[in-house]
Amino acid sequence: MSEGKKRAAAKLKTARGQIDGIIKMLEDDRYCVDVSTQILSAIGLLKKANIDILNGHIRSCVATAILEGEEQGEEKIEEIINIIDKYIK
Amino acid sequence: MSEGKKRAAAKLKTARGQIDGIIKMLEDDRYCVDVSTQILSAIGLLKKANIDILNGHIRSCVATAILEGEEQGEEKIEEIINIIDKYIK
Amino acid sequence: MSEGKKRAAAKLKTARGQIDGIIKMLEDDRYCVDVSTQILSAIGLLKKANIDILNGHIRSCVATAILEGEEQGEEKIEEIINIIDKYIK
Amino acid sequence: MSEGKKRAAAKLKTARGQIDGIIKMLEDDRYCVDVSTQILSAIGLLKKANIDILNGHIRSCVATAILEGEEQGEEKIEEIINIIDKYIK
Repeated sequence: MSEGKKRAAAKLKTARGQIDGIIKMLEDDRYCVDVSTQILSAIGLLKKANIDILNGHIRSCVATAILEGEEQGEEKIEEIINIIDKYIK
Repeated sequence: MSEGKKRAAAKLKTARGQIDGIIKMLEDDRYCVDVSTQILSAIGLLKKANIDILNGHIRSCVATAILEGEEQGEEKIEEIINIIDKYIK
Repeated sequence: MSEGKKRAAAKLKTARGQIDGIIKMLEDDRYCVDVSTQILSAIGLLKKANIDILNGHIRSCVATAILEGEEQGEEKIEEIINIIDKYIK
Repeated sequence: MSEGKKRAAAKLKTARGQIDGIIKMLEDDRYCVDVSTQILSAIGLLKKANIDILNGHIRSCVATAILEGEEQGEEKIEEIINIIDKYIK
């Protein structure tokens, strides 16, 4: 597993633990604003994990494809743009 | 547990399952763009869970506080605005 | 015009000026990353203007409707939830 | 001006017109939810303009830098990752 994926995996495991905690908060009927704040925190962590993935992907797969040739590069760039587009919608 | 919280809890459990799946994808060294797409999906689910929470909160706690009096209402509205602000940053 | 709307209008006018500047940057073929950074800044300003609007709206229209009665309150709350939902998609 | 920048400039001009319209709505004390919906629309347009910019940038500057050599490529990739990171915070 690449370094980027290892970093992402660690963040995903933390986010998973946070979600366990949030489910517990709901079962304990905790205050909604506190629950919402925790959900925002888990979302933030998932976003950071995704940056780790994209960072690693651009540096490896996309860069390699560009070096291999225009057509391969074109395909990978299109993929990255689609991911960014989905992200910022 | 309120209906809104039940809906949110269901979405959170689904998101937790998705994250387990994503961690497995990383361990299997799956293609980054597929991993990123799954992370975006989990983020989307958490956002929807948060809408369930905010929806329930505004209809119950915020509305009740407004009915109780300006000061109580003021405090709850401030909380909601802060959550929305954090969200859209 | 309410205080909230005045604050929003001021931010909108600033954002408008930023967009003039960004269009100029494009005409001057300025570096893309600098252009992108300016667009993000204008987006941030529009988001803040929108918080001013929502803040004022919840404190006035929504609170008044809740005080008038459940049905009126219900309608206004639904509107706010839809706006938040559109925002965080 | 590149095609991507031309597309972005057209969207920015439309967004500028929208913002003029929103400022007018505020002066006419129009309903907040309608104003907020228009602001969201202008934000959406700016985001699309930014995708045009990033799309063109990755295909030209970033790809060229990668082809020139690792160090140049590294710098451009870092820039793109920082932009994406700012975007999704």
